[in-house]
Amino acid sequence: MQTVTVVTEKNLRELVQLDEASILCVEEAFRALATKRVVMPPILRLDIAENRGEVDVKTAYLPGLETFAVKIGPGFFDNPLRGLPSTSGLMVVLSSTTGFVQAVLLDNGYLTDVRTAAAGAVAARHLSRNDASTAAILGAGVQARLQLRALSLVRPIREARIWARDPAKARAAASELQEALGFPVTACADPQQAVIGSDIAVTTTPSSKPILQAEWLAAGQHVTAMGSDAEHKNELDPDVLALADVYVADSLEQTRRLGELHHALSAGVDLSGTRQIELGDVTAGIQEARLNDDQITIADLTGTGIQDTAIASLAFERAVSGGAAIQVQN
Amino acid sequence: MQTVTVVTEKNLRELVQLDEASILCVEEAFRALATKRVVMPPILRLDIAENRGEVDVKTAYLPGLETFAVKIGPGFFDNPLRGLPSTSGLMVVLSSTTGFVQAVLLDNGYLTDVRTAAAGAVAARHLSRNDASTAAILGAGVQARLQLRALSLVRPIREARIWARDPAKARAAASELQEALGFPVTACADPQQAVIGSDIAVTTTPSSKPILQAEWLAAGQHVTAMGSDAEHKNELDPDVLALADVYVADSLEQTRRLGELHHALSAGVDLSGTRQIELGDVTAGIQEARLNDDQITIADLTGTGIQDTAIASLAFERAVSGGAAIQVQN
Repeated sequence: MQTVTVVTEKNLRELVQLDEASILCVEEAFRALATKRVVMPPILRLDIAENRGEVDVKTAYLPGLETFAVKIGPGFFDNPLRGLPSTSGLMVVLSSTTGFVQAVLLDNGYLTDVRTAAAGAVAARHLSRNDASTAAILGAGVQARLQLRALSLVRPIREARIWARDPAKARAAASELQEALGFPVTACADPQQAVIGSDIAVTTTPSSKPILQAEWLAAGQHVTAMGSDAEHKNELDPDVLALADVYVADSLEQTRRLGELHHALSAGVDLSGTRQIELGDVTAGIQEARLNDDQITIADLTGTGIQDTAIASLAFERAVSGGAAIQVQN
Repeated sequence: MQTVTVVTEKNLRELVQLDEASILCVEEAFRALATKRVVMPPILRLDIAENRGEVDVKTAYLPGLETFAVKIGPGFFDNPLRGLPSTSGLMVVLSSTTGFVQAVLLDNGYLTDVRTAAAGAVAARHLSRNDASTAAILGAGVQARLQLRALSLVRPIREARIWARDPAKARAAASELQEALGFPVTACADPQQAVIGSDIAVTTTPSSKPILQAEWLAAGQHVTAMGSDAEHKNELDPDVLALADVYVADSLEQTRRLGELHHALSAGVDLSGTRQIELGDVTAGIQEARLNDDQITIADLTGTGIQDTAIASLAFERAVSGGAAIQVQN
C-alpha cells in the first residue's frame, strides 16, 4: 500500500502563495538548470481543434529533489462562453527514486500562475536596475496582477501603469492593485503611454502581433515578456531584441522555437549586439546579465517544466507536513 | 465547483477486467484511429538515468468520446531491489469539451496491462486463423499471463506452451494458467520448442536481442510481438518480418521508430514481399490482413495513446455510474 496525497485547489491556495519562498524555490530551479544535469524533455502538446482546446504536458527532473512533477495544462478557449475559465489542469508529483505517484495537486492552473509570476520576480531581481520604481504592465488578466505583485516583492515599486486591449479591464485591474499594493496604479489608454518612462515593463498578453515597440524604450529599462508560450504568440517587436544589450531566456532551446526570440530570428533582425544567455546562468552567477544602469535588458519567459517541478515539490512538502489534504491508500 | 473522481487501483480492478467489453473498447479505438481524425502526439519521455527510471506520457483524442486520457507511465527498474514493482503510474481523464479534469485513475499500470492484452486479443481475432488452437507465449510476466487469457477469449485455444529465460518462472506461470484456463499449459526449455507447431506465438519479453527466429515459423502461423515499447527492445529476428505475408502495426509511425519494424529496417532486410498495414485499417474493414490460412501474419504492438484513452474512458464511465470511487469537490 502506498499513500497518494490529493490536494484541492482551495487547499493549494492556502499552502503556496506568491511570496519570497516561492520566488526562491523557482530561482533555485533555474540555478539547477544551469549547474546540474537537469532532464527536461520537449513539451507534449495535444490539440483538440474543434473545441479550440490545447493541452500542454511539461515535466522536468532536477537532481537533488526527491520528487518531480508532470503537469497537464489544458487551455480551452471557448470555456468563457460556458462561464468557465479557459485554463485548468493538475500536477502529478512522482518519486524520483521509484517513480511511484506521491501526490495529485488539483490546482486548476493555480500553481502555474504562481510559478510563472515567481519567474517574473526572479528575472526582475537579476535584470532590472536595483532602484527600479515604476512598472508598466501590458495585459489585465491573472498574470498582469501577479506580475505586478511579483515586481513589488523584489524592487521598490512606487508607481505602476496598466494597459489592456479592453480599457474597462485595465481600469478594474488598476483599481484592485492600487488598493492591494498601496501605491498609485493608473490605467493607460495606449501601451506606449504605459511603457515610456517605466523602469520595468512586463507583457502578459496572448497577442499574436507585437505590442511593445523598440522606439518606446530608453537606457536602463528592463522588459519581461511572459505571454508567449506557443509559436504564434508574439508581444515584442523584433527590433526590441536587436536594441537590447542582453537577452535572457528561461530556456534558449525553447525560446528559439516558441518565444520572442523565435519571431526575431524569423524576422531576420540583427542580434549581433545582443548577448543571448539563460536565466539559470544568471541566477547561478555564471553570467552577469546587466552590466550597468544604462543597459536595456530583456527576459523572455515561455515557461519550463523545472518551474513546475519546483513549485509542485514545494506544495507537496507543505501538504504532507500538516497541510489540508486527502490521503488515499492505494 | 467541479467534481473530480479519484479511483484506487483496487477499485479499478473491480471495474475493468480483460473481457469482451474491454477488447471491444480497444478494437473500437483502433477503428477510430483509421476512420476518424484522431489526434495522437508523439510520446513524451523523461529518463532518470541514475535510478534506472523512465517515464512515458501518452495521450490521444478520439472524436466522439466525451473524455480523453493522459497516461503517466513510470518504469523504475531498480524497484524490485526495494520489493516494489518496476511499473506504476496513473491515468488522468479530461473533458474533451472543456479540458477540465474529470477523474484520476490511480491504476499503478493495471489499466495499461488490460489495454495491452486487449490489443493482443484484437490482433489475434483479426490476424490469426479462425481455428488457431495452440498458443506459444515467450515470457512469464504479467503480460505473458494476460496475453494467453486474451487469446483464449477470441480463439478456441486448447493447448499452450510457455518459455521464459528463467525456467522456474515459466513453470510457475504454466501451472497457474493451466489451473485458471482449464487446458494444458506446458513450460518449455527453449523458445524454439514453444514456437514450432504453435498456431499463435506471442512475445512478451523485455529482450533487446531477437528471440523468435524466422526458421521456426510455418505456413498459417500468427505472431504478435508486444514487448517492444522502446528503441532498444527487439524480440523478432528481422527475417521474421521479411518472411511474413502481412505485417500489422498498431501505429506504423511508431513501429518505424521503436517497434520490431524499426530493427528490420535498420537491418536492411528485404520487406518487398511483406504488406505493411495498420491494425485500425483491419478492424475498420479497410484492409484485409490474412488472405488465406497459409499466410504468416505479424502484429507489432508498441502501445498507443488511443488505447489509454479508450480504457480510461471505459473505467471512468463505470466509476461514475455506481462504481466505488472518491468524489473530490474542487
